[in-house]
Amino acid sequence: MARRRKLYEGKAKIMYEGPEPGTIIQYFKDDATAFNNQKQGVITGKGVLNNRISEYLMTKLTEIGVPNHFIRRVNMREQLVHEVEILPVKLVVRNVAAGSLAKRFGLEEGTQLPRSIIEYYYKSDELNDPMISEEHITCFGWAATQDLDDMVTLSLRVNDFLVGLFLGVGLRLIDFKLEFGRWYNEHDEVQIVLADEISPDNCRLWDVATNEKMDKDRFRRDLGGVKEAYQEVARRLGVLPEAGPMDLKGPKAVQ
Amino acid sequence: MARRRKLYEGKAKIMYEGPEPGTIIQYFKDDATAFNNQKQGVITGKGVLNNRISEYLMTKLTEIGVPNHFIRRVNMREQLVHEVEILPVKLVVRNVAAGSLAKRFGLEEGTQLPRSIIEYYYKSDELNDPMISEEHITCFGWAATQDLDDMVTLSLRVNDFLVGLFLGVGLRLIDFKLEFGRWYNEHDEVQIVLADEISPDNCRLWDVATNEKMDKDRFRRDLGGVKEAYQEVARRLGVLPEAGPMDLKGPKAVQ
Repeated sequence: MARRRKLYEGKAKIMYEGPEPGTIIQYFKDDATAFNNQKQGVITGKGVLNNRISEYLMTKLTEIGVPNHFIRRVNMREQLVHEVEILPVKLVVRNVAAGSLAKRFGLEEGTQLPRSIIEYYYKSDELNDPMISEEHITCFGWAATQDLDDMVTLSLRVNDFLVGLFLGVGLRLIDFKLEFGRWYNEHDEVQIVLADEISPDNCRLWDVATNEKMDKDRFRRDLGGVKEAYQEVARRLGVLPEAGPMDLKGPKAVQ
Repeated sequence: MARRRKLYEGKAKIMYEGPEPGTIIQYFKDDATAFNNQKQGVITGKGVLNNRISEYLMTKLTEIGVPNHFIRRVNMREQLVHEVEILPVKLVVRNVAAGSLAKRFGLEEGTQLPRSIIEYYYKSDELNDPMISEEHITCFGWAATQDLDDMVTLSLRVNDFLVGLFLGVGLRLIDFKLEFGRWYNEHDEVQIVLADEISPDNCRLWDVATNEKMDKDRFRRDLGGVKEAYQEVARRLGVLPEAGPMDLKGPKAVQ
């Protein structure tokens, strides 16, 4: 394969220039980080699993009419996506108190929230992704009011769908993070589309029967069985690759 | 049990006065009808299964904030619901062409629609539930514009959630029918809430892997295995009663 131009390397993924203008290759790494890079590790096979899980979820979201950047999976660790201008605002949708929300408000983890809520965070490693409000977003021009409206509407649809889907496979969707981008679509109109990935890296998923955590909290909190949890999520969604452990290791990312 | 006042007997359910003002007992019958009563039959155990399936789905819809009339299941064939003023408009949400839509537009059953659509039907056995438009609804005062807006918004949320949930258990939600009512809530405000039931009686559900029909079309079209299909839907949702076939038969409806 010809050497490709690397556009950006993040904590869990690398972006390469795609084969056609306006496309990008998302390469899924096994690297795991937490607490803004203070904790680092490797979850063998995670990239392969997240590539599959995100492919499945984005495809199903396309089918119900939630626009997103996904085009197709290319191989075990890569998928082709539309090039979008990522907005610097992350949306977190929460159904149940956990993580930082539980801590901030002194709620017990697992407390059902009166209704689903959306939080906004400013994407900035230097500033440690601070929580922000709609006021900050529109004041500093991180997103236009209409774009923010679109992001909220899409996030609520994604939540309804994913809560249902995960419930169907015995998992409770506690909370999750979404990123959006501005995309110039086929009609040369700017459209807000879902981007990044949806996987146990950015969703909290608890087993319905046992409340066992099936997501990156197993890594964050040293609970063990991290890879097994990701595999189980993929298995329940029907997308576990039929492969030996060797395939899950895969090659290191092209440098 | 004291003799209860029957309020209404429909094709698949009987409504009795509930134990407290503002409540109703919904009794699920095994009777099945199709083509506006032209075809009649009995699906042994259907009432028991639909009572469970609808309990489960309404409960989960409550959890995601979709208001509905369900309070609690009382026994094998009965559930307690809020008394609501049922609106004379049925909403049908369609994701895939089937049934009357496929016929009306000459589409092959199973054709994915470009986007999910909502159809309105006027509830009238005499008129054979004619299809209507928003114009008819507001012109004849069957629902206020705001009520109709609420019904559409809720229907789309129900669709997103149910498409996800059924997909998680290997079923494709082709289309389904919803009924709504006006309910005077705890604050004495009028609120539009989902009513009736959600079950294989009013959802088309196809197995994801085999496209096998798992709903009342098995009865409508004499495909056989009707009871088994309803049982399989209940089993996949984790609500199949642990009971022998005797229990599924249950008593005939109180006359």
